[in-house]
Amino acid sequence: MKTLLLLAATLLLVALSVLCHMTVPSAGLNFMAACLAIIPLAGWMGRATEEIAVKVGPRLGGLLSATFGNAVEIIIGCFALSQGLTTLVKASITGSILGNLLFVLGLSFLVGGLKHPVQRFNIRVAHSQTAMLMLGIPIMFLLPVIFSVSRYHSLLVMTGAVCSVSFLVYILGLVFSLYTHRQLLGDLEEERNEDIEDPGRIKNSNLLFVNLPVSLLILLIVTVLVGVESDFLVHSVEHLASHAGWSQMFLGVIVVAIIGNAAEHASAVWMAWKNRMDLSLEIAVGSSLQVAMFVAPVLYFFSIIVGHPMFFQFSVPELVSLTAAILLVAILMVDGESNWLEGAMAVGAYAVMAIGFYILH
Amino acid sequence: MKTLLLLAATLLLVALSVLCHMTVPSAGLNFMAACLAIIPLAGWMGRATEEIAVKVGPRLGGLLSATFGNAVEIIIGCFALSQGLTTLVKASITGSILGNLLFVLGLSFLVGGLKHPVQRFNIRVAHSQTAMLMLGIPIMFLLPVIFSVSRYHSLLVMTGAVCSVSFLVYILGLVFSLYTHRQLLGDLEEERNEDIEDPGRIKNSNLLFVNLPVSLLILLIVTVLVGVESDFLVHSVEHLASHAGWSQMFLGVIVVAIIGNAAEHASAVWMAWKNRMDLSLEIAVGSSLQVAMFVAPVLYFFSIIVGHPMFFQFSVPELVSLTAAILLVAILMVDGESNWLEGAMAVGAYAVMAIGFYILH
Amino acid sequence: MKTLLLLAATLLLVALSVLCHMTVPSAGLNFMAACLAIIPLAGWMGRATEEIAVKVGPRLGGLLSATFGNAVEIIIGCFALSQGLTTLVKASITGSILGNLLFVLGLSFLVGGLKHPVQRFNIRVAHSQTAMLMLGIPIMFLLPVIFSVSRYHSLLVMTGAVCSVSFLVYILGLVFSLYTHRQLLGDLEEERNEDIEDPGRIKNSNLLFVNLPVSLLILLIVTVLVGVESDFLVHSVEHLASHAGWSQMFLGVIVVAIIGNAAEHASAVWMAWKNRMDLSLEIAVGSSLQVAMFVAPVLYFFSIIVGHPMFFQFSVPELVSLTAAILLVAILMVDGESNWLEGAMAVGAYAVMAIGFYILH
Repeated sequence: MKTLLLLAATLLLVALSVLCHMTVPSAGLNFMAACLAIIPLAGWMGRATEEIAVKVGPRLGGLLSATFGNAVEIIIGCFALSQGLTTLVKASITGSILGNLLFVLGLSFLVGGLKHPVQRFNIRVAHSQTAMLMLGIPIMFLLPVIFSVSRYHSLLVMTGAVCSVSFLVYILGLVFSLYTHRQLLGDLEEERNEDIEDPGRIKNSNLLFVNLPVSLLILLIVTVLVGVESDFLVHSVEHLASHAGWSQMFLGVIVVAIIGNAAEHASAVWMAWKNRMDLSLEIAVGSSLQVAMFVAPVLYFFSIIVGHPMFFQFSVPELVSLTAAILLVAILMVDGESNWLEGAMAVGAYAVMAIGFYILH
Repeated sequence: MKTLLLLAATLLLVALSVLCHMTVPSAGLNFMAACLAIIPLAGWMGRATEEIAVKVGPRLGGLLSATFGNAVEIIIGCFALSQGLTTLVKASITGSILGNLLFVLGLSFLVGGLKHPVQRFNIRVAHSQTAMLMLGIPIMFLLPVIFSVSRYHSLLVMTGAVCSVSFLVYILGLVFSLYTHRQLLGDLEEERNEDIEDPGRIKNSNLLFVNLPVSLLILLIVTVLVGVESDFLVHSVEHLASHAGWSQMFLGVIVVAIIGNAAEHASAVWMAWKNRMDLSLEIAVGSSLQVAMFVAPVLYFFSIIVGHPMFFQFSVPELVSLTAAILLVAILMVDGESNWLEGAMAVGAYAVMAIGFYILH
Repeated sequence: MKTLLLLAATLLLVALSVLCHMTVPSAGLNFMAACLAIIPLAGWMGRATEEIAVKVGPRLGGLLSATFGNAVEIIIGCFALSQGLTTLVKASITGSILGNLLFVLGLSFLVGGLKHPVQRFNIRVAHSQTAMLMLGIPIMFLLPVIFSVSRYHSLLVMTGAVCSVSFLVYILGLVFSLYTHRQLLGDLEEERNEDIEDPGRIKNSNLLFVNLPVSLLILLIVTVLVGVESDFLVHSVEHLASHAGWSQMFLGVIVVAIIGNAAEHASAVWMAWKNRMDLSLEIAVGSSLQVAMFVAPVLYFFSIIVGHPMFFQFSVPELVSLTAAILLVAILMVDGESNWLEGAMAVGAYAVMAIGFYILH
């Protein structure tokens, strides 16, 4: 019943957005309609991916989640890159990482901490993710700017180098967590499986789609719809940036970054409230890592193909914000515990950065 | 008896300083006389505040200590801001943080480590303070410069934003440590209370001032005297900077920063020698946090009122020194242990920075 | 038998290099020949130093290893400084630290991790080394640039200040680990000594050189040969840099930095494979620290004497790479555990930096 209502709401929002795009000349309205349609579509996409993952078994499933988990971001990015909006795409990469690390993680710590005085999480997983963040973000995003001094050829080589290394380390990370060190990291998964009411896992008993072909069909349809909406979104962003005076940077860092992940974000906070901090971290920090080490390289390779190369030449505010965010998160996670004050700090830092990106021209 | 001698010495130094100010035309001498008078006054101020805190109970008392603990710095800062000496005030904020984090903490580790091979401290408190440092200092001090690119309006907005967020997080931190997580952080306090000879606590049996009104009167008188001396100090600094060739930066970072806290500093080192590392850290790191998240915002709001707005546009040497200091301290504190070599490192880093600020023009 | 073959190979390589230098006009060939001769000579030098250390007892021996362990780097550096190649020497200092921290440590984690799922090391030693890294590298290398704004006099003072402080802290570190805290850090050494087949220790039963005078003689001869080869190397580097278009920076950071330590590097990786992570870290991280806090100051003082002062004015790519490397290593070491993925990350970061230094002109 609830599912049918959700489905109806999704279709209504998609229809509204198409109608807006056809008839209404206001970029602001079109933008909002596209955003509102993408949010539930992203939720359905995640659902379909997860159900396919359950049906094909843990390893192939893990690989699938890791690969298609950020499909919405990749699709929006590809449409924007085809239009040459490289600043927007780079800003949405920065924003997605900052939003996940500071806003989503912070809100999870804050909301969870209001109910539970001290929340604990698997320190080994936290540590491994922090190390990846420290490699993936300051090193990969800083080095191209530092070494190439804005020269075209150097930027091309360095961006290619960091994207290849990031991508490779990401693949190795999957091998690590799905094959060689599955046991070690998996202790907590087993615990979770024992828990019968686990809200973060799909059981065979509550699958929505009857079999694999149906799930694949759903995934295909949703992907096409996401593509259509992304096209609308990108066009309205172009108008918005040129007319309403909002910078591509602000739209990318704060607005676009939030849309593709809204459903995920809500579930990270919900998991924290249920005291399942490991799932919450998996979503918040895991998403940041996927964006930095998988989405960003994929979009770079795509940008080369479509002939609008997106160099990793991030601005100083982006680089400083990313580095500061990672150091703060590293300190917050190093002890395997969280409380509401830590959450408030992360959200506070995000608020200052959001204001900063808004006033930046 | 000892108390009476101290009182006499304080009054003598104040009288000397007033005499100097009236008769001696040398800025250097006046400066030194004002400094020498402020040091014991700050001690009395701390004593009166602490006694009032004991009398009004733990919660209101904790709030009081956290608010009036840095009264001397705030008073000196207000006088300097009224004269438009924003560089000096910003430098004294930087210097106070660097001095507490590197010099006082380092000296405590070094002196304590000479007597005790390994000293331990409450790792949960250390961690919570490190996280606050990481938020409060690199983020709050760096972001205004980074995002505003020296434009007046942006600096105004960003400084306001970071000051408001810092102030709010500081208040939340008090709620955290005095209300919601009192039990958790308080384990060590109880231990302390059990220990009868605790030199860091005032007992009802050894109060100097007979009752609350007397304590309040003493606090009032001392505050007025500190105000007078601050006025002398600020005037002599102006002369010193323009005639003797010392920069406002050096005077602020190294000299003024030390004066307001000399009494506290001595007691942090003394606590370390007595192997009470938690108290020592509470003073050294706690003071840095108070300066960054409470004194700095208060002075900013005051600077707006008096019409000499102090923007958080710190210089590159200040920002790099602060960031390096925090990373070093974070590493030194992460394991909950200290030894004399760690202390020597911190003092060495401070020495290099002091030389740096001296040669900087 | 094996020893004799090694000796013969070493002599052959030295002879070849001398022959090249006399007859062949190609700088590239001479460079390669000198490199190939230095690698085994450095191995013999290390062997002789270690045997002398065993013969003179643990404390004097520890001091000796710490002082002469980087003799090859110091000799090459001195020859290059006499020729005024300060850029090359500074680059080889950066490169030696980066190479040890990222490449050698990473390769050790990677190779060791392929055999052992999780490897553990003494967390107290790791922590003490990380703190030293955090002091010795970002602070010591960054502050001279930041505070002196390229002015000659300031650079002279600041470089002198950081070199003196580094040197002093290094000496204090030796006092700490050889005298005052020997017991604490030595727990693992005892364990090692119990293990009879320890491959990382020389026993009295397997000394190569019969007595102290013979060892000293060998050390003297090898040192002279290293000096001769360093002279060849420096001359060929000058030609290579001016003719073949390779920058002094790349040659210093990537090539020269590896030569002086090749033997040591191989043994760090070998120790990791044998699951002796403490020895492996002692070599990789210990070498970085020695270079930063002992070799760099010694070369600075030498550069003053020979009249080609080498200021600590490192380039932005060098400073960013060093800082990023230290933060990554700090995170990798903080939990006292390693695995192959952590190793792959460090090697990946090194690869990106090597490409960066190659394309930098």
